[in-house]
Amino acid sequence: MPRFRIDVEYDGGAYAGWQRQAGQHSVQAAIETAIAAFCGERVSLRGAGRTDAGVHALGQVAHFDLARDWKAETVRNALNAHLAQAGETVSILQAAVVADDFDARFSATARHYLYRILNRRAPPALARGRVWHVPKRLDAGAMHAAAQRLTGRHDFTTFRSVQCQAKSPVKTLDRLDVTRCGDEIEIRASARSFLHNQVRSLVGTLKKVGEGAWDAENVTAALEARDRAACGPVAPAHGLYLVRVDY
Amino acid sequence: MPRFRIDVEYDGGAYAGWQRQAGQHSVQAAIETAIAAFCGERVSLRGAGRTDAGVHALGQVAHFDLARDWKAETVRNALNAHLAQAGETVSILQAAVVADDFDARFSATARHYLYRILNRRAPPALARGRVWHVPKRLDAGAMHAAAQRLTGRHDFTTFRSVQCQAKSPVKTLDRLDVTRCGDEIEIRASARSFLHNQVRSLVGTLKKVGEGAWDAENVTAALEARDRAACGPVAPAHGLYLVRVDY
Repeated sequence: MPRFRIDVEYDGGAYAGWQRQAGQHSVQAAIETAIAAFCGERVSLRGAGRTDAGVHALGQVAHFDLARDWKAETVRNALNAHLAQAGETVSILQAAVVADDFDARFSATARHYLYRILNRRAPPALARGRVWHVPKRLDAGAMHAAAQRLTGRHDFTTFRSVQCQAKSPVKTLDRLDVTRCGDEIEIRASARSFLHNQVRSLVGTLKKVGEGAWDAENVTAALEARDRAACGPVAPAHGLYLVRVDY
Repeated sequence: MPRFRIDVEYDGGAYAGWQRQAGQHSVQAAIETAIAAFCGERVSLRGAGRTDAGVHALGQVAHFDLARDWKAETVRNALNAHLAQAGETVSILQAAVVADDFDARFSATARHYLYRILNRRAPPALARGRVWHVPKRLDAGAMHAAAQRLTGRHDFTTFRSVQCQAKSPVKTLDRLDVTRCGDEIEIRASARSFLHNQVRSLVGTLKKVGEGAWDAENVTAALEARDRAACGPVAPAHGLYLVRVDY
């Protein structure tokens, strides 16, 4: 019973998130339906990151088991054909046969997210639904400096959704870099794992720094408060991308 | 009677092209409608490039005259508000008051286009409608070398739509560069002006080189044939972007 790993790109705008939910259109269900259409097997897919509604992926990873020894390339091409036929905005970048103990969620050693802010007066035409449009000029340098207060091992209760199901609010944030590229501000976050809404909560707080409402001291105070109420507004889902998962 | 210049971004997928046409949804008409909604004046917009149906713009330029001396920023913000309200995927990046003899079309000294090819097996999920998906591996280096046969002053009859209305097929192509960035191949073309379908015709021919069906000698022969039938297939519109216009 071979185990398959798939690397997946999707436009999150059309989905209620990665995870299968009754009565909702999810990325997981879209791929499970394509697998059933391809080989008749009903599998349960496990993804590395349970992205929220609207969040995109450039490199989500998932695994599933099939009864038959398909060639990985056949699986990728067949799933893409069925996904396209169903009108899904999901693409299987790669498929590979992996060891039986590979687990897309629990074997992951790092997850990398990108958050895109379009920082100009004019609204996006081409990047609509792909960026957070912030018309007021943000100071990316100040955002980056403040972000360094948040890296390392901390209790991230302030930056965690009240619905978060993680056992502990303590996580190690390996990277939180803010760079400006023309009209766009890119925020790159890396960690072994994240709390629910953590990246969007961090970005919303950094935006307050960028617009001058907060300074780095306020960010440190918010972190140390260990209180959800101390968090800035949560940044919208459609600027967030799950870029890559390491194993 | 002040003259306004606007710089415009649009997703060409929703439009029958830049130019106003009876019974069709054009970018020009969308902006003219927004101008009328803003100030009640019915103007005729002149654009620098008459992009075809499906072609995108990152920096189209157009001009129009208004009776009243509006502040340029007011014009930009009001047009963006009306365009958003109408559900158009058009954004006014900048507006400026310009000299009476500025002509978006005839004053232009250079036009810059980008053509994006997504060169990987998996279809695009996030870039759907924004790139030409070519699954077979292309040799970008060979494409770039062959492209240099096409720069300079030539009779481009081979690479010109039969509907082209330009008086002469002789144009000077200043730049035709092919570069690979990961899975994407970017083709950048610059000239004072282009013939109808010229960039897409050039790209379709370079793709034949990239897949090994043609070599650089075939490209030279196609150019020298001065015959539309010698052209490779025309690349699809949705990979093409009008990036910038110089004055």
